[in-house]
Amino acid sequence: MMESFPLLPGGVHSGSDNYRAPKETPFYWGTQGHDDELYIQQAVVLIEDAVHYRSINHRMDPRSIQLYRWYYSRLCQWGLNVVIFVILVLAFIERPSSLSVTSDLRSKHTLWEPPCGLTEGIEIICLLIFTFDLIVKSYLIGHEEFLKCKWLVAYMVVISVSVIDWTLSLSMACDDTMRIRKLIRPFYLLQNSSLMKKTLKCIKRTIPEITSVILLVVLHLCVFTMFGMLLFERGENPEKNMEWEFYFKNFSQSLTSLLVLLTTANNPDVMTPAYTLNRGFSVFFILFSGFGTYFLMNLLTAIIYNQFRGYLVMSIQTSILRRHLGIRAAFELLHCQSQEPTFSEDDTVECVMVQTVLKVMRRVQMKGYYRDAIMKKASQSSSGYIPREAFQRLFDELDKDRMKYHPPLPEYSSKFLRKVQFVFSQHYVTVVGNAVALANVVCICMILVIDCEKTLSERDNYYLETINCFFILYYLLEMVLKMVAFGWTGYVSYGSNIFDGSLTVLLLGLQISIFATYSLPFSYWNPAHGGLTSLWEMVRLVNMLSIFRFLRIIPNIKLMALVASTMVDLVKNLRAFAGILVVVYYVFAVLGVWLFRGAIIAPATNLSTTVDPRIMKMTVNKTLQCGSYEQLGYWSNNFDDFASALVLLYNIMMMNNWNVFLDAYARYTTEWSKLYFIAWWLTSSVMWVNLFIALILENFIYKWDRNHGCSNRDMERTDLETTIQLMFSLSFQI
Amino acid sequence: MMESFPLLPGGVHSGSDNYRAPKETPFYWGTQGHDDELYIQQAVVLIEDAVHYRSINHRMDPRSIQLYRWYYSRLCQWGLNVVIFVILVLAFIERPSSLSVTSDLRSKHTLWEPPCGLTEGIEIICLLIFTFDLIVKSYLIGHEEFLKCKWLVAYMVVISVSVIDWTLSLSMACDDTMRIRKLIRPFYLLQNSSLMKKTLKCIKRTIPEITSVILLVVLHLCVFTMFGMLLFERGENPEKNMEWEFYFKNFSQSLTSLLVLLTTANNPDVMTPAYTLNRGFSVFFILFSGFGTYFLMNLLTAIIYNQFRGYLVMSIQTSILRRHLGIRAAFELLHCQSQEPTFSEDDTVECVMVQTVLKVMRRVQMKGYYRDAIMKKASQSSSGYIPREAFQRLFDELDKDRMKYHPPLPEYSSKFLRKVQFVFSQHYVTVVGNAVALANVVCICMILVIDCEKTLSERDNYYLETINCFFILYYLLEMVLKMVAFGWTGYVSYGSNIFDGSLTVLLLGLQISIFATYSLPFSYWNPAHGGLTSLWEMVRLVNMLSIFRFLRIIPNIKLMALVASTMVDLVKNLRAFAGILVVVYYVFAVLGVWLFRGAIIAPATNLSTTVDPRIMKMTVNKTLQCGSYEQLGYWSNNFDDFASALVLLYNIMMMNNWNVFLDAYARYTTEWSKLYFIAWWLTSSVMWVNLFIALILENFIYKWDRNHGCSNRDMERTDLETTIQLMFSLSFQI
Repeated sequence: MMESFPLLPGGVHSGSDNYRAPKETPFYWGTQGHDDELYIQQAVVLIEDAVHYRSINHRMDPRSIQLYRWYYSRLCQWGLNVVIFVILVLAFIERPSSLSVTSDLRSKHTLWEPPCGLTEGIEIICLLIFTFDLIVKSYLIGHEEFLKCKWLVAYMVVISVSVIDWTLSLSMACDDTMRIRKLIRPFYLLQNSSLMKKTLKCIKRTIPEITSVILLVVLHLCVFTMFGMLLFERGENPEKNMEWEFYFKNFSQSLTSLLVLLTTANNPDVMTPAYTLNRGFSVFFILFSGFGTYFLMNLLTAIIYNQFRGYLVMSIQTSILRRHLGIRAAFELLHCQSQEPTFSEDDTVECVMVQTVLKVMRRVQMKGYYRDAIMKKASQSSSGYIPREAFQRLFDELDKDRMKYHPPLPEYSSKFLRKVQFVFSQHYVTVVGNAVALANVVCICMILVIDCEKTLSERDNYYLETINCFFILYYLLEMVLKMVAFGWTGYVSYGSNIFDGSLTVLLLGLQISIFATYSLPFSYWNPAHGGLTSLWEMVRLVNMLSIFRFLRIIPNIKLMALVASTMVDLVKNLRAFAGILVVVYYVFAVLGVWLFRGAIIAPATNLSTTVDPRIMKMTVNKTLQCGSYEQLGYWSNNFDDFASALVLLYNIMMMNNWNVFLDAYARYTTEWSKLYFIAWWLTSSVMWVNLFIALILENFIYKWDRNHGCSNRDMERTDLETTIQLMFSLSFQI
Repeated sequence: MMESFPLLPGGVHSGSDNYRAPKETPFYWGTQGHDDELYIQQAVVLIEDAVHYRSINHRMDPRSIQLYRWYYSRLCQWGLNVVIFVILVLAFIERPSSLSVTSDLRSKHTLWEPPCGLTEGIEIICLLIFTFDLIVKSYLIGHEEFLKCKWLVAYMVVISVSVIDWTLSLSMACDDTMRIRKLIRPFYLLQNSSLMKKTLKCIKRTIPEITSVILLVVLHLCVFTMFGMLLFERGENPEKNMEWEFYFKNFSQSLTSLLVLLTTANNPDVMTPAYTLNRGFSVFFILFSGFGTYFLMNLLTAIIYNQFRGYLVMSIQTSILRRHLGIRAAFELLHCQSQEPTFSEDDTVECVMVQTVLKVMRRVQMKGYYRDAIMKKASQSSSGYIPREAFQRLFDELDKDRMKYHPPLPEYSSKFLRKVQFVFSQHYVTVVGNAVALANVVCICMILVIDCEKTLSERDNYYLETINCFFILYYLLEMVLKMVAFGWTGYVSYGSNIFDGSLTVLLLGLQISIFATYSLPFSYWNPAHGGLTSLWEMVRLVNMLSIFRFLRIIPNIKLMALVASTMVDLVKNLRAFAGILVVVYYVFAVLGVWLFRGAIIAPATNLSTTVDPRIMKMTVNKTLQCGSYEQLGYWSNNFDDFASALVLLYNIMMMNNWNVFLDAYARYTTEWSKLYFIAWWLTSSVMWVNLFIALILENFIYKWDRNHGCSNRDMERTDLETTIQLMFSLSFQI
């Protein structure tokens, strides 16, 4: 958890100091009682640190160890995450509440507004828990380390500011204007994840180079803006002034037009008036986008990727280093305790007793599978002693993938059952199953194509229902037979079977409930029946689940399996990036709600009860240019509550038509609102998307290199590992 | 030029066979006359091959050598390139001719149509030249090699097909329907560039992996289309059917909607009707784009980049190999000739005489600078003989950057001139010059901001004109003083001075012509004067040039200089990619003109003479949905001639609003036209843009690694070079 703790040489040396001179540090590394029990406890904690890649730089006296183990227990950490989740989710129900069916400005009805004090109450509980968390954390690492760690100091400041802000807010009777504490809430999420902090550090490192390209982009933009303004100046002939009128009227408008063109969001439109006059004008725009969009923007990608090269390897190295540190520390402790290296002739071979190791391992909280593997390996030692290298190697088991072993097939006495077992444990059963799933999807697709233009009442669902029944029965049969063939535990040991099985059970349940409600499906196919829509909804759900079930084919296609497994791995590495995305979304959404809430007013609020978007569109049509907020009917995209702000920010991140929002808010508020949108564009589309591409590249290439034999990177990694080993040997032995 | 010639081991061995047993090959490696002159000639050709990284696999008899040197002379190659350029440019003037001011469908007036036979005449001349080129090439490499080389065989086929097609076309009196020869014209460009052929090979290698991702994209698209159709089925309430009506009416429309969403081109629009009804529907679209656009599309980038990693290094290695081969062959020839290794004690040291080398070098056609460097280095040999390694090393001079050395400052006798020289040869003169250029740009910018809303007649150009005069005089003074300080040759030896100077001269010329036409500028500032617009145009041009001149600051800003130099390097490596882009644009544009020419008919052709786009827009407004081709007024984007087809394809490549074209052509022609647009999207946006990103990444990282000390890649490269050296030694000596 302590990211800023220096792990490399300095850290190691301070660690070795601790080992050599435990008496100098009053409460670190237990000096109160030199009994076995304390040593064992300390070793247990150190090994837990190693398993979870945690820093070993914390208090080691008996009471602190108790606290430490409790604090890092799964329950406690899970609780903390829930609290962080709760305080973040508060934004949805706080006023302006997002609890409405639609965010459409013309027909918004908030379903429920929280009474004053409810969200505040929840919030203060969360804040108190955070305060407690901070106290425990800072106690565990000690006062000096606390001051060194900027994240913890910032944590303290954030909590204090939040509490003060909360008090002010409550004293003003839940005044829901801008509250600074909402804006700094995402900090709790950041603070609690070491991966995110690491990623942030990496991003910080990239800033200087990005700045140089951004400067170049600005220069490019300014030069072209001035060229554009000279090129499309207001002429004598008003008919030929279209380009000037719509896009180059003044400096600010020209700059905006070209900035938006840089994102391609107004591409053919911005050149259309000029291009209609003369083909030659297209050269100006093509040069601008060719250089700006393709060249400079992609150069940004290159720069960001270049900084992120080796990021994965680096983060793996840091983790490995922490683990080695923990294991080595545990070994030193246990070695000190069992001062009996009697069987060796030279003094340099340090050993620990197998019994002690087993005792420690039994108390370590970790996944049972790995614990068993390590204990098994430890007890294989013939001499009863484990030397240092072997002790280190014990924990290599942690890096090994858990071998999924499938239980043996059950043995049946019945001949028939044995035959069934033989037939259904073959590979082709999966192939046939896939074919049937495909057939199901094709059926649904065909019925969709036939039915697509029909209204609900015109549809004949009899066939569809029959087909669905047939397929569900087949799936059920497949499931049962597979269960018979593999036995219950064998069936469950395959991930794909769990996926299939649970969907089949769901489908069956739905089908039964359809039967139960409408007894026999075809007797009620009559539009007068009240429950029809609901029945149709259920059939639709069945279809959707069937399509979803079809995805089971993916692992069975080799090429796709490779790509898909790359993606699954990526998702794991993506958590930190997703967390940072959540943080920026949160901050910008809160800021947006504060700045632009209620800025756009729907044109005809009296229509809000019986809204017909088409009528609305017609009334607006005559006055407004095509492509504007009003004419496109983007009324649901606004900053009036947190949820719609998120969707609006997402739409801007996708960049298409983001100029519509830029323009609308500039019109309804001030020109300066553009700054907010441009800041978001830079943060999301430029920074985050490029980071994401860099991560995908890094992951894919890392995986590729690993799959295709020993590459340079791997060699580098191995080199570094040996270097670490050497470093250790030096700092501990010399 | 011969890409498919196997260069690695096989090639080397065949080469060594040629050296060892020249008698067995009748016309390779000259057996007709063993006189010195032939050897020297052959050596000259081999060294020229080495200098230009050409393959040495061609005839070596005296007549062939003459032909070969003539064929690869700069004039001849330049002529060939001109012919290729001419045949490609023909597409602009062939019917449908692009020679019109605008491509607007409502007001297109073609200025000139070529008479029947003109373009055909030019074309047949080009084809004859290509035939001659083919004959020479195939003669030079010999019959066997010709058959092995697929590119040359294809060249032959393309020329034959073109000639047949040309004959047919002429016999049908210049019928301008689809002519197959237009479609295959870009082949000449491809065939003539070894870089492009190499890149194509690289792309071919990437196809299998791209296919797997494309399959995944198709699966993703199909699954979501079916989900979407189930989710947005036609319901009972017509008000709630907006989503179904506009985007999910049938399978084809749903698929198109989601395909376009994959490119984000219809992002907020496609979700607007559903999102207006219920916030929850946004999840469907966000999931779709999140996975499809961000994940799968970027995975494509990763895959393409992964294939292109090492592409640059590989291509450098191939070139190095070819150069080594040429140099080594030349050495062997010269060594055979001068059979007098008398001064060495052991027989293994092979040498050539310095005199011979100098004789050969004097006749080699190469850049004088490098020739001088090599000859100087060769004549430094003390013994009069050059051993093999030293001979090889001679040509390392070619890899060294040409050191730009500036001539010494001229010495003046006058004291005043010496003072001027001292003052103006300092660095701060550049700084002051930059500051003045900046001031000029700021002035222009301010006047632009002030004047932007004024019409031409309201503007007061007096100040602007005075300011311009002042700045131009300053630039002139700066130029003259610098010339005095550095002398003429010293001044010209700086690239930045040439840039400054030529722009200053241009500005001065313009300014003088303004004065000459209007004698004193301020006496004529009266809108009644007829020449005003033209005067204004000239002032505008002066301003543009002043802004352009401001770009001289770029090399003076460190950060930017780095990025800019990266980009300059990139442009060099980009030629092959640009060539492939030209090829795909050409093919698709010709195909588009063939398929869709005249498909869209302007609504009111009687308006075409007095066109007012605004009126046009109003009349269309009532019937058409916002965002359609007609309402956006995209009339100039069509396939009615080659030039407008290029711009339309460019607009689709930029992807914003490409759905408008997709939709318009589907409406005016058939649904199948979508295939053309999707094919172009896949070729340009998916393939080419990703290739471009891969190239930028590769270039940037290569440059970065080279600038930041010895990296892995460099090590790899050095390793390979030594491997090549070893390989050579083995194949020649053992």
